[in-house]
Amino acid sequence: MPLTTVNLEPPYLLYLGDVPDDDHAKTGHGMAYWRPELCAGQMRLPECPVDIGLPEMTVAEAAHAGVKTAIVGVAPVGGQIPDHWVPQLIELASAGISIAAGMHTRLTAMPDLVAAAHKSGAKLSDVRVPPPDIPVGIGTPRSGKRVLMLGTDCAVGKKYTALAVHRELERRDIPATFRATGQTGIMIAGEGIPIDAVVADFIAGAAEMLSPDNDDDHWDVIEGQGSLWNPSYSGVTLGLLHGSQPDAIVVCHDASRTQVLEVGGDYPIPELDEVIDDALRLARRTRPRCFCAGVSVNTSRMSDLERDTYLGELQHNLALPCVDPIATGVSPIVNFMLKHV
Amino acid sequence: MPLTTVNLEPPYLLYLGDVPDDDHAKTGHGMAYWRPELCAGQMRLPECPVDIGLPEMTVAEAAHAGVKTAIVGVAPVGGQIPDHWVPQLIELASAGISIAAGMHTRLTAMPDLVAAAHKSGAKLSDVRVPPPDIPVGIGTPRSGKRVLMLGTDCAVGKKYTALAVHRELERRDIPATFRATGQTGIMIAGEGIPIDAVVADFIAGAAEMLSPDNDDDHWDVIEGQGSLWNPSYSGVTLGLLHGSQPDAIVVCHDASRTQVLEVGGDYPIPELDEVIDDALRLARRTRPRCFCAGVSVNTSRMSDLERDTYLGELQHNLALPCVDPIATGVSPIVNFMLKHV
Repeated sequence: MPLTTVNLEPPYLLYLGDVPDDDHAKTGHGMAYWRPELCAGQMRLPECPVDIGLPEMTVAEAAHAGVKTAIVGVAPVGGQIPDHWVPQLIELASAGISIAAGMHTRLTAMPDLVAAAHKSGAKLSDVRVPPPDIPVGIGTPRSGKRVLMLGTDCAVGKKYTALAVHRELERRDIPATFRATGQTGIMIAGEGIPIDAVVADFIAGAAEMLSPDNDDDHWDVIEGQGSLWNPSYSGVTLGLLHGSQPDAIVVCHDASRTQVLEVGGDYPIPELDEVIDDALRLARRTRPRCFCAGVSVNTSRMSDLERDTYLGELQHNLALPCVDPIATGVSPIVNFMLKHV
Repeated sequence: MPLTTVNLEPPYLLYLGDVPDDDHAKTGHGMAYWRPELCAGQMRLPECPVDIGLPEMTVAEAAHAGVKTAIVGVAPVGGQIPDHWVPQLIELASAGISIAAGMHTRLTAMPDLVAAAHKSGAKLSDVRVPPPDIPVGIGTPRSGKRVLMLGTDCAVGKKYTALAVHRELERRDIPATFRATGQTGIMIAGEGIPIDAVVADFIAGAAEMLSPDNDDDHWDVIEGQGSLWNPSYSGVTLGLLHGSQPDAIVVCHDASRTQVLEVGGDYPIPELDEVIDDALRLARRTRPRCFCAGVSVNTSRMSDLERDTYLGELQHNLALPCVDPIATGVSPIVNFMLKHV
């Protein structure tokens, strides 16, 4: 069965609106990092504090530079496009620049934007649309190997870690596929399933469809979604976990995060040993021999010394590889994963 | 914000197609048990083994008896209406009998049926349609009291137990509302949210919307959905659990069930003490003082003596009220719930 597929024509302009911080500009940062050769520039509202570091462009400059597609590079809670972004999107579409977004609000449901795009011939691509006819999950064990990212919260580096693990497996000539579960991952990989946009009854079925039977030595590296500890999205995460039947999980964490973001109560991030125990207890319902292959931590707000101390202590306490996927790389996690599977 | 609401005109005809067993005829059995005064008859294909015990009717007999609405009384995996049921549904609609169903397949998406209904003036009601504009869950603690049913599998008596607990609270003049989360519950109560039809990102938000802030002494009695131990639907259940923030859970179980039904692997139902521990561990993420108020077991395949022995031993081991909601009633669970909240 076909997955959600996207074919976006480069070069890209990353549109950021007035997104308040880097955590909410995940799509823009992800595209710029993993597909730099395809990204020509960025566009923001004047008050936007986030800077991806690409050339700033007006609509005219983007058109002049040959930009073919503007990607809405943000991931707000609830996935809505704010009304005050729409005039710029219409201006882009009117200039013949196609637009892609991964929001629950669909570009194709915005009449003025549709009219502008129709007139200029620009394409509107909604990436967060699951494929039709997803079956109910069935829980049958599958062949091939799988590793799934599990976050202590949203926006802690699950996608980055998955792509880094995938790249490391490819570097070692081990057959592997990155399996995208969110809009950014799908734009990077060209296909996947936006798991949080699937109807609830079919979450596990979508996860089963995303990583089907495969060769025994093949790894599916599955991007995570949400978090078991986030009261808004835990259902998405458990459905993905049970449907993925991972041989291994990698716990992803932000060292500066002590509380779950954007919720209305007291939701501390549990200690990482507890996180691993709870996650494995749930994971083993569909994959009895599932193990944790390591912890991937965003330590970007630490000094080098702080990072070394933090990761060293964590590794000592957990007896598992603990890395910063950017600063130290994920190689130790891949080693552990391949050794213990 | 409005919930999914349905206004079905009685009397009802319960349509069963050729559903293979009672577990899959939950909607029909539920309507006949909880709204007997509204149910005039049943209609089946010749080979259907399920008998609800209502007068058997042809289309002509139903029309003659003044039946206003035929309710598709089944709940198959995946929620599809089989093609070979459609001719009878069209015949009903052509006779001016409205049709209601709670499937993922929508009646209003079946052109021939729509045409027949349009011609006769019959209404087509799709009950499994969530309300629009469900927000993302936020996790803020809410006022009022809540009890949620959690099943060891699907089709183990969650809805029955919830309705029985609700009735018992009303009998004691304790303010209470039954909160329906599935199609049958919604047809019985007239409103609710079909939680398994909500887009995955919004499961917890839907649960929060379903049981909003209320008076301190008011109980929301929330029907469960799916099961944390069912690899097909666990995500739905966890989202509902976290969004409901229950003060108490009631574990629902079928004493004759040792394996999860309709899955492709080895999925034993865990021991009930383990079920309770795991459920409370997850529940306490959003309601730290959540407790288990008892276990409600379908023991219909046991003799009276077997039942007494089974429930007695269970109660001794768990130190919690253990009942069969039909044979013994849920009063001990309600007592425990009110005492310990």
